[in-house]
Amino acid sequence: MTPPAARRARLRDRLAREGLDALLVTDLINLRYLTGFTGSNGALLITAGGTGSAGGTDETGTVFCTDGRYLTQSAAQVPDLERVIDRPVDVALLARASGRVGFEAGAVTVAQHAGLVEALSDRAGAVELTDTRDLVEELRVVKDDGEIDALRRACAVADRALAELIAAGGLRPGRTEREVGLDLDQRMRVLGAADPAFETIVAAGANGAVPHHRPDATVLAAGDLVTLDFGAVIDGYHSDMTRTLALGRVADWQRDLYDLVARSQQAGREAVRPGVSGAAVDAVSRAVIVDAGQGEFFLHGLGHGVGLQVHEAPGLAASATGTMSTGMCVTVEPGVYLAGRGGVRIEDSGVVRPDGYEVLTTTSRELIEV
Amino acid sequence: MTPPAARRARLRDRLAREGLDALLVTDLINLRYLTGFTGSNGALLITAGGTGSAGGTDETGTVFCTDGRYLTQSAAQVPDLERVIDRPVDVALLARASGRVGFEAGAVTVAQHAGLVEALSDRAGAVELTDTRDLVEELRVVKDDGEIDALRRACAVADRALAELIAAGGLRPGRTEREVGLDLDQRMRVLGAADPAFETIVAAGANGAVPHHRPDATVLAAGDLVTLDFGAVIDGYHSDMTRTLALGRVADWQRDLYDLVARSQQAGREAVRPGVSGAAVDAVSRAVIVDAGQGEFFLHGLGHGVGLQVHEAPGLAASATGTMSTGMCVTVEPGVYLAGRGGVRIEDSGVVRPDGYEVLTTTSRELIEV
Repeated sequence: MTPPAARRARLRDRLAREGLDALLVTDLINLRYLTGFTGSNGALLITAGGTGSAGGTDETGTVFCTDGRYLTQSAAQVPDLERVIDRPVDVALLARASGRVGFEAGAVTVAQHAGLVEALSDRAGAVELTDTRDLVEELRVVKDDGEIDALRRACAVADRALAELIAAGGLRPGRTEREVGLDLDQRMRVLGAADPAFETIVAAGANGAVPHHRPDATVLAAGDLVTLDFGAVIDGYHSDMTRTLALGRVADWQRDLYDLVARSQQAGREAVRPGVSGAAVDAVSRAVIVDAGQGEFFLHGLGHGVGLQVHEAPGLAASATGTMSTGMCVTVEPGVYLAGRGGVRIEDSGVVRPDGYEVLTTTSRELIEV
Repeated sequence: MTPPAARRARLRDRLAREGLDALLVTDLINLRYLTGFTGSNGALLITAGGTGSAGGTDETGTVFCTDGRYLTQSAAQVPDLERVIDRPVDVALLARASGRVGFEAGAVTVAQHAGLVEALSDRAGAVELTDTRDLVEELRVVKDDGEIDALRRACAVADRALAELIAAGGLRPGRTEREVGLDLDQRMRVLGAADPAFETIVAAGANGAVPHHRPDATVLAAGDLVTLDFGAVIDGYHSDMTRTLALGRVADWQRDLYDLVARSQQAGREAVRPGVSGAAVDAVSRAVIVDAGQGEFFLHGLGHGVGLQVHEAPGLAASATGTMSTGMCVTVEPGVYLAGRGGVRIEDSGVVRPDGYEVLTTTSRELIEV
């Protein structure tokens, strides 16, 4: 079975448990996960299949739909499913459905839902349109080997782009944050990233105290700490890493701050293992900073899942409800932010393994002086 | 009045006509249009105001909401409105509303709507939540002077990036489409674009026959026509231009194809004026290509509106229902696509003026040989 077919089989088990005859998948990220299709318009009607005996592999009645622009692309990306070229894609697929049919309430707008209901008006009784939440998102939380490999390659592109930026002298006093960000982003693209995974953060000096500072005309200066938070998209998977680097020699308070965050980050990495809650991992890492009297300056949760989205389940935070399982991919990223002075954040992406956390980010976590 | 306040005043007139006491604006692009806020989480409750005598300028009860991450940013961007810091932003604002309150059915998901209904459960009767469509989008179709100025600057960045690319020898045999696209995109960023307006198209040789070809490892060769379709985002406004250039000397059939599309594009530009339907403009431009016996190879509509989105109303196409008005900003972009051989597309962005179409794209429409 191809990975998408195996994912569809898992989803069918879930549909059966929910008492659904089919699910209309219109969220484009979930669609990519279940079919491999990367276009901007498409949908999937996935039926629960006959009996459970086939292990959910019965694709009868499961149909993919896109419009004419994607005729060639969809044939290549979705060779293993019945395919319809029509639009609107959701209405076209619903016409083929019957019974209790779920839709994705987190992706379908009220206007779109009204269109579906109207399209069903001449088939009253044939379809019971049913609100569902996160059925595919819950499958996506645990990654298969192919997904982990894509994430590993996305991490490698980010690691290499940073190494090249440093080697080329791209991090130097006199450059603006915006110039550094554009340089780093372009290096990721040239190395094969479809795009940066999110808007790259470059925060020099006092700007380092703002967790999500946007790169601006601030000029890097000798003695600054500079925080770079960035990632690459490879085959749809988003890496996410942060390093705070020193521009030349920095003061003792900056080095002490770095060491504190590095110890917290190590504690967080060591706490990740199957069965531990995301809240517990956050607590272990946070305790290091709290014990140093800096707890009030750690302004955000410890981490988050990464995958087809750069922020997805599970969360690693006091408010998180989930528990780590083998195959989940998460970040560990403590930070301390001192308003008006600066800040430090250190972040890796990695995967939960039976014996702990395998870090996919390979850049050193020692303080790098450039 | 600031431009956002003037836009709110116009929206109030519309709300009054619709019999709405207020509108809950959650679409982030509409929110930016009505407030100037550019963050990723926010909403606006805009009340219809007291009587119409104030010309819709009564801001009583109109409230902006975002979360704590945007405390400073929203104070700077939205200084002229009552502001609430809370989340979820939609629920927080709905708690302050009463009467017949519209929501944006094209932006609110079914899950989000269910959350609003639940939040109202203890105020039964106080709020009648009402489905609305495109109330703000319809205002956005006609641009004010500030918007046209932003679009003009976005066009200028794209024009200049192309000129620099050519001057630097960036369009030459041996380079891949992907390299050319990355180069052009980076030049736009360095010139001040927040980002390219969409995924830049670079289509060399036979790839030019695919209207939305994605730049790949295809190597540019002498004698190719190369189509570049790209734009820049400045202050939220999206420019959009296409030029097909010749790599050295091209064959007669390529030059003839270029001349045909250029004549069609000129006819289209000359047909744009207030009161003419988008369908009629398309027909005038298309007739040039049909008369040359190539009508079946003009595979798409003639153009589209540009603004805070790169594709927005009005359409210029056989299926379009709207009519040109002064202040609308639209593209004119005919193309001819010969499968297996190549294609030509020429596109400008411009604004509808009382006496015709003012083109904002300044790059020559003569065939450029590089």
